[in-house]
Amino acid sequence: MTGITRLPHPEPADVALTDVLFALSDPARLEIVRELAAGPLTMAECGVTNPDLPKSTKSHLMKVLREAGIVRNEPDGRRRLVSLRKDELDAVFPGLLDSVLAAD
Amino acid sequence: MTGITRLPHPEPADVALTDVLFALSDPARLEIVRELAAGPLTMAECGVTNPDLPKSTKSHLMKVLREAGIVRNEPDGRRRLVSLRKDELDAVFPGLLDSVLAAD
Repeated sequence: MTGITRLPHPEPADVALTDVLFALSDPARLEIVRELAAGPLTMAECGVTNPDLPKSTKSHLMKVLREAGIVRNEPDGRRRLVSLRKDELDAVFPGLLDSVLAAD
Repeated sequence: MTGITRLPHPEPADVALTDVLFALSDPARLEIVRELAAGPLTMAECGVTNPDLPKSTKSHLMKVLREAGIVRNEPDGRRRLVSLRKDELDAVFPGLLDSVLAAD
């Protein structure tokens, strides 16, 4: 056993558009999504652009993003690997994530 | 004088993407935006798909949408006319409103 819990992930089709928009509407959450657009990161690497973020706050941000179907957060050995569910989101809400990531 | 106050409207360029996403993240606000996608409506006509909405709640929803640069709310004689600032938003956040309006 790894000691790292598997977390639940909704199917994007089961997530309301408003939940996705809400998850993206916070600057700290949006910053993490931007970081993940370049590729998966370990939980420890997420939020490097926001180093003063308390660990408990970061855990909560990641939970909101996961529950909105925006990120996948999976055990990877002793670490957690976080990835953007871009293809899945694109299938349900075409163009949404691209337009958000393209904006400054 | 008409007795109807002119309200302030931000330039879309002055609005943060996160404010726009937040304004769209509420089901009642998003429903009004969908109604306005077909064309301008009077304040009285806005929210017809949600007839039980208290007037004070509706005023607040409209204020959030206006302050996020999503709608224009202008005196028109004795009425208020509300319109979606689609072209202006499209210029600042290309594709965002279209992807939101296209989603179910």
